[in-house]
Amino acid sequence: MDPFDYYCPTRVVFGPDRIVALSELIPRERRVLMVYGGGSIKRNGVYDAVLSTLARHTVVEFGGIQPNPEYETCLAAVEQLRAESCDFILAVGGGSVLDACKFIAAAARYDGTAWDLLEDNSLTADALPVGAVLTLPATGSEMNPNAVISRAEIEQKRALIHPLLYPQFSILDPTTTLSLPERQTANGIVDAFVHTTEQYITRMVDAPLQDRQAEAILLTLIEQAPKVMADPSDLSARSNIMWAATNALNGLISCGTPQDWATHQIGHELTALYHLDHARTLAVVQPGVWEHCFAAKREKLAHYAWRVWGCDGMGTDAAARAAIARTEEFYHSLGIGTTLADHDIPAAACDRIAARLGERGVALGEDGAITGAVAGEILRLRIGGD
Amino acid sequence: MDPFDYYCPTRVVFGPDRIVALSELIPRERRVLMVYGGGSIKRNGVYDAVLSTLARHTVVEFGGIQPNPEYETCLAAVEQLRAESCDFILAVGGGSVLDACKFIAAAARYDGTAWDLLEDNSLTADALPVGAVLTLPATGSEMNPNAVISRAEIEQKRALIHPLLYPQFSILDPTTTLSLPERQTANGIVDAFVHTTEQYITRMVDAPLQDRQAEAILLTLIEQAPKVMADPSDLSARSNIMWAATNALNGLISCGTPQDWATHQIGHELTALYHLDHARTLAVVQPGVWEHCFAAKREKLAHYAWRVWGCDGMGTDAAARAAIARTEEFYHSLGIGTTLADHDIPAAACDRIAARLGERGVALGEDGAITGAVAGEILRLRIGGD
Repeated sequence: MDPFDYYCPTRVVFGPDRIVALSELIPRERRVLMVYGGGSIKRNGVYDAVLSTLARHTVVEFGGIQPNPEYETCLAAVEQLRAESCDFILAVGGGSVLDACKFIAAAARYDGTAWDLLEDNSLTADALPVGAVLTLPATGSEMNPNAVISRAEIEQKRALIHPLLYPQFSILDPTTTLSLPERQTANGIVDAFVHTTEQYITRMVDAPLQDRQAEAILLTLIEQAPKVMADPSDLSARSNIMWAATNALNGLISCGTPQDWATHQIGHELTALYHLDHARTLAVVQPGVWEHCFAAKREKLAHYAWRVWGCDGMGTDAAARAAIARTEEFYHSLGIGTTLADHDIPAAACDRIAARLGERGVALGEDGAITGAVAGEILRLRIGGD
Repeated sequence: MDPFDYYCPTRVVFGPDRIVALSELIPRERRVLMVYGGGSIKRNGVYDAVLSTLARHTVVEFGGIQPNPEYETCLAAVEQLRAESCDFILAVGGGSVLDACKFIAAAARYDGTAWDLLEDNSLTADALPVGAVLTLPATGSEMNPNAVISRAEIEQKRALIHPLLYPQFSILDPTTTLSLPERQTANGIVDAFVHTTEQYITRMVDAPLQDRQAEAILLTLIEQAPKVMADPSDLSARSNIMWAATNALNGLISCGTPQDWATHQIGHELTALYHLDHARTLAVVQPGVWEHCFAAKREKLAHYAWRVWGCDGMGTDAAARAAIARTEEFYHSLGIGTTLADHDIPAAACDRIAARLGERGVALGEDGAITGAVAGEILRLRIGGD
């Protein structure tokens, strides 16, 4: 196990009808900027629940955060926040809204051009407090200091990660997820699953507790996913998936272990260029990363196959191969295609993304072995179609 | 899964030679009360490492905290703290030192009689900041807001649990545990093991992630324990046990689940009256709780047997019985006896403890079914001897 620091000060408030806790979690004197997305919270009752709980607070609304939250939209929120002198940001929605709020919180306290913060995270020196009412289990943003922001104008997607950006609190009410469309439910499961594997499928390391904590999340998702796909009103499955998704990216399972994240970095390019849902990019890219890096990852892939997929009798190579196949089948079982062709993305994407990542001089994966050119090779394994 | 709040703001700093982080973790202007136990830190180099790292801080020392920290000793520390105007408490040692420091931190900011805080935790309204250098993995005190304090004069042992008492930081340097005597090593493993089972062996609940997170800790302890018992200098095993013990009582595995703690409550009486090591009381009491509450716990015991002890083919009753036997064998493998007779405690302890707990009107266990009289019945199952 490598040396590590673990710090995660977010308060999680979990359970049905916990939104009422907001009135105590946000001090009365705060001026709240309530940020949300496309308006689904107005249809499922969350919007009304938040406003009635905050009836005695001053609340200013900012709606319209996109999936893959857009830089320009966040800047508009910062402008409104400053105009209204808001000093607390309440995210109501999924990971995109949360990510946007973290970036808004940092940008509101930064005097330069806000994009700088995404180019150089260390420029963040202050941030407004953020709280959240989570309505979509997927990104783990509710219990971590990470934000991913897109900028359509220059076709870029960048991360801001800073300890000042942990939400002060996150309310996780699984009943708010009952009305999620199947596509978002499936995406959320894949997102949480891949967050876990990015921190787990690297090489064999001496961190047996962290391995088993990762396996706990994967096994829970594999077990609960078919229940919620069969019955979207299954509150038990919704609850277990919600808590698993939070645990997948709160930093605990990566304590003292190597991490990969190549699948995410390459996937971000597919979203930036072809607007594919984040989770679907992961389902496309991941099998390619595992196949291309098979020699480096085969022992851990086999360990994963034995522990998670029940491939007990198999030898290392066969188990590692089975791990890739079983994972892809799992994504298919959620209705998610795993090739570029499945999502109508042209084979030209391979060269295009290789060039873009090459220009940025990336060295992705736990060993830094994945350059832009290698990313192109990985994507070529995922072209699919006839 | 029941509703829950999860909040754990302690920063963990883990790894060899991390004690140097102290100089940055404690602001320079703080006056530090450095609290330790019987002086083992002077033999293993930790004392020198702390003082040289804090060379530019004002440090006042208070040594002599007992295992099962004594109320009167803590009061003496409060007196010294006030006389020296200290405003930061640094615990250097194991869980007893940490627990003492939390109590000192609360007592220093309480105007009444400090024992009140142990009788009524809600009286805690303020506390000094506490940081820790942990040298003994066992209690989990390094990442939770709990303290257990003893008072020999009235033969009592009480808990103080309050969110103001989370350590600000805990430095976990596994090399500091290499010189631990075998008895303390074994005790620490049993303590962490029973912390986990107190939150896990209750009834079957719909919390599959939390179950697997608990199993992750138990499996890690079972796997690592023989390594460290065979080779006390095994830094890998020391590291994995240290991190497992912290995870056993940082609140994560009990999110939304019932908890038992009867073994601890009855065990505290054995320590208060007969001065038996805390962990050894747990090893004595626990099999009795499980046997006495077999009907209520059998399904979860069987689940534990299947998941943790590999009793796959067995039916529910046989697996549940095997779980009790295997757990007891595990304690024996660490050189720890599991009956009163093994520790020369007379059978009269059963009636004596039944009466004491009866006077306090306790209702222990996840169902509150264990009264003083029931505790006596449980202890009678553990008399042992010929």
